[in-house]
Amino acid sequence: MEKTDVLVIGGSAAGIVAARTAKSFYPDKEVMVIRKERTVLVPCGIPYMFGTLKSSDKNVIPDAPLENAGVKIQIGEVEKIDTENKTCKTSDGKEISFEKLIIATGSTPANPGWLKGADLANVFLIPKDKEYLDGVREKLEGCKNIAAIGGGFIGVEVADELRKLGKNVTIVELLPHILSLAFDDEVAIQAEEALISRGINIKAGSGIKEILGDKSVSGVLLNNGEKMDVDAVILATGYRPNTAFAEKSGLGLNDMGFIRVDEYMRTEKSADIFAVGDCAEKRDFITGKKIGLMLASTACVEARLAGFNLYNIGFVKTHNGTIATFCTAIGDAAFGAAGITENQARKEGFDIVTGTYAGISKHPGTLPGTNKQIVKLIAIRESGLLLGGSVIGGPCIGEFINFMSIVIQNRMTVYSTLTAQIGTHPLLTGSPIVFPFSMALDELVKKLRGNI
Amino acid sequence: MEKTDVLVIGGSAAGIVAARTAKSFYPDKEVMVIRKERTVLVPCGIPYMFGTLKSSDKNVIPDAPLENAGVKIQIGEVEKIDTENKTCKTSDGKEISFEKLIIATGSTPANPGWLKGADLANVFLIPKDKEYLDGVREKLEGCKNIAAIGGGFIGVEVADELRKLGKNVTIVELLPHILSLAFDDEVAIQAEEALISRGINIKAGSGIKEILGDKSVSGVLLNNGEKMDVDAVILATGYRPNTAFAEKSGLGLNDMGFIRVDEYMRTEKSADIFAVGDCAEKRDFITGKKIGLMLASTACVEARLAGFNLYNIGFVKTHNGTIATFCTAIGDAAFGAAGITENQARKEGFDIVTGTYAGISKHPGTLPGTNKQIVKLIAIRESGLLLGGSVIGGPCIGEFINFMSIVIQNRMTVYSTLTAQIGTHPLLTGSPIVFPFSMALDELVKKLRGNI
Repeated sequence: MEKTDVLVIGGSAAGIVAARTAKSFYPDKEVMVIRKERTVLVPCGIPYMFGTLKSSDKNVIPDAPLENAGVKIQIGEVEKIDTENKTCKTSDGKEISFEKLIIATGSTPANPGWLKGADLANVFLIPKDKEYLDGVREKLEGCKNIAAIGGGFIGVEVADELRKLGKNVTIVELLPHILSLAFDDEVAIQAEEALISRGINIKAGSGIKEILGDKSVSGVLLNNGEKMDVDAVILATGYRPNTAFAEKSGLGLNDMGFIRVDEYMRTEKSADIFAVGDCAEKRDFITGKKIGLMLASTACVEARLAGFNLYNIGFVKTHNGTIATFCTAIGDAAFGAAGITENQARKEGFDIVTGTYAGISKHPGTLPGTNKQIVKLIAIRESGLLLGGSVIGGPCIGEFINFMSIVIQNRMTVYSTLTAQIGTHPLLTGSPIVFPFSMALDELVKKLRGNI
Repeated sequence: MEKTDVLVIGGSAAGIVAARTAKSFYPDKEVMVIRKERTVLVPCGIPYMFGTLKSSDKNVIPDAPLENAGVKIQIGEVEKIDTENKTCKTSDGKEISFEKLIIATGSTPANPGWLKGADLANVFLIPKDKEYLDGVREKLEGCKNIAAIGGGFIGVEVADELRKLGKNVTIVELLPHILSLAFDDEVAIQAEEALISRGINIKAGSGIKEILGDKSVSGVLLNNGEKMDVDAVILATGYRPNTAFAEKSGLGLNDMGFIRVDEYMRTEKSADIFAVGDCAEKRDFITGKKIGLMLASTACVEARLAGFNLYNIGFVKTHNGTIATFCTAIGDAAFGAAGITENQARKEGFDIVTGTYAGISKHPGTLPGTNKQIVKLIAIRESGLLLGGSVIGGPCIGEFINFMSIVIQNRMTVYSTLTAQIGTHPLLTGSPIVFPFSMALDELVKKLRGNI
């Protein structure tokens, strides 16, 4: 039997950060990562392998930093954990004993078994699997018309990349708008317009009923009866936590299939076994409800917490919940959101006000490279507490959205945010006089005061 | 005698925001702005009029938004305030009575009277004065060799813009490095390298002794005896608050020449008279000491506070101090800082640790347009409280620096920041696994724990 002090199952973002943190804070402990993949892909970079990067080899997380830090890497799939005796068994019969275990097995694409035709040739998923995705890339070369089923981030980003290769791409989305779990309608509509201007077709408001074809895909049939001829289908209908082996091992799962954990990322079954990242239970920062939101940002925080807290609890979460913090780019336009959307807030029963301002990203606006920047903010009417917001703009909104997110994470109000200082520079940000974020706050204050 | 409910003296950033806020929160009140300038320039955009924008007309703040909001604009210079009878007198003899007054007269370049030769032709200041600066632009057309005296932001930015016009430009800085009030040496050195690579000369470590010439500039003599032949000199040696008329009117000034104000921006003399922006007293967010730092970000917050609080105090400052939040761009590189520098912290007597990480701005780094991103953070050793930081990177660090600033403004520690969520996207930010900000925090934790 092999032996290690700390075993990490899973070698993507959460596994890497967990192992690195464990090794750097407990340098005397042996830390081992066991993972299925020979080569680990940058998970969020996967869509960009299709068009921009042109090869999966350019989207690889190297092993060297982890190995140089003294972490051992093994390739193998853990099938079962003996929580009592603290050992793991792999699919090829190997046994590894551990003192502390961190489960970071991530997620895989939702099983498309419910969908007729999902087993046809040229129907593809987007797993974090280099060999499989290299195959998808190769097979898509001969395809002209492609349907991306699911207008979430992966569906949208893969569609946009396939369009860059000259493919005729259609995004099929069940809800009235794409990206509508992340964005309110007015933002989603702008994202749709950006995609359409790039030559992508969008069919929203009707889900897929069936994939048509004999051996290989010939078309898709929508719920509304519409039929489209396509020669390939990308299924991007969400991800599920990789927790079957954990369930089999007696680790408690919640009703959404995630491993239940406490505030310090320890499983219910054993304080020596932690779970982090996409496979671990999440609660929403605003509502406190269990959610299925899988974000690398959450995964990396949880991985750090587990790594720090392995042998004694020295770190508590700053915020006991996962805050939605998203951004993506479509051509020159970028779209970001943090916290709760207006739509979700109203469904939840919040009494809210919203403030929106359309400004620009430099000042004066005559400067070359100036983008529009539209900020929307959502606050509780009674207290002015900021619950969420979105921004449409140029590429720098990726860095901006973290400002918005940390404001919400710190439970700041309209009032405290409006009197905090915001730095600006002509070439780098909007004007301090009409900074879009501040102007949206101004509008909120007016509404809260009853001025408008 | 003219009459208004609210009078704002000064029409730049602070004056505009004060007047707009006053009008929108007290819509029944008459609000008037009186200012010296016929046309108001975007203050921070002034350097970019020289090269990038090519004309001051492209760097103008329009009057229409203020006028459309119902604010009256008058051109005139207030010479004296009668604080008892609540009237103002202008230099052309006009009298205006007010209920509430907001002084937002800003700042002017430091008087160069101490410097021999400062009165020669082709010695220029950089005031916020369109007509004067149009004259500077015109006169510089015939000049080939230019010395910018003072390596602060204005000196650096104007020098870089003049270089774009093909001028031979030398920055002269008294301190060992340029920008050294804003940045630690290692950041300043990178800014210097960026400037040098663009063909700008830097003479740091020796101040100017004298400007040489007969009627017009022929050269400059440095304190170290070095002589340079130049045909124009830009004096960028700092700004002083425009408060002579306020002092004459009996409003209390502090020993640095700023109008003393309370937490709600009211002057000592009268609760009906407010002062905001560059002319109003500032205290440092970290040290609490009186400082002379003039930032548009502070000015706009103060202006909002005064506008809100004119008739009753409804808003208090979130943070009772001015936090240094800077950024600037030199070519493709941008430089930002928030809070206190390592250098200042050590001088102040703080027992600190620093963490630095050099990463990249996208992930994977094979994506086109990836920039380096170097983050440095400074924390108190005892508690882990974050005091300051800097970042070198691409243009998006302008938006990023506000994230760092709000973290510091919220008195977050290394621990609470490290377990907060930070959103990422391949095309828009660094990787969640090695996000430079988080990695710098990681290094801080290791130092605080004694691991390194």
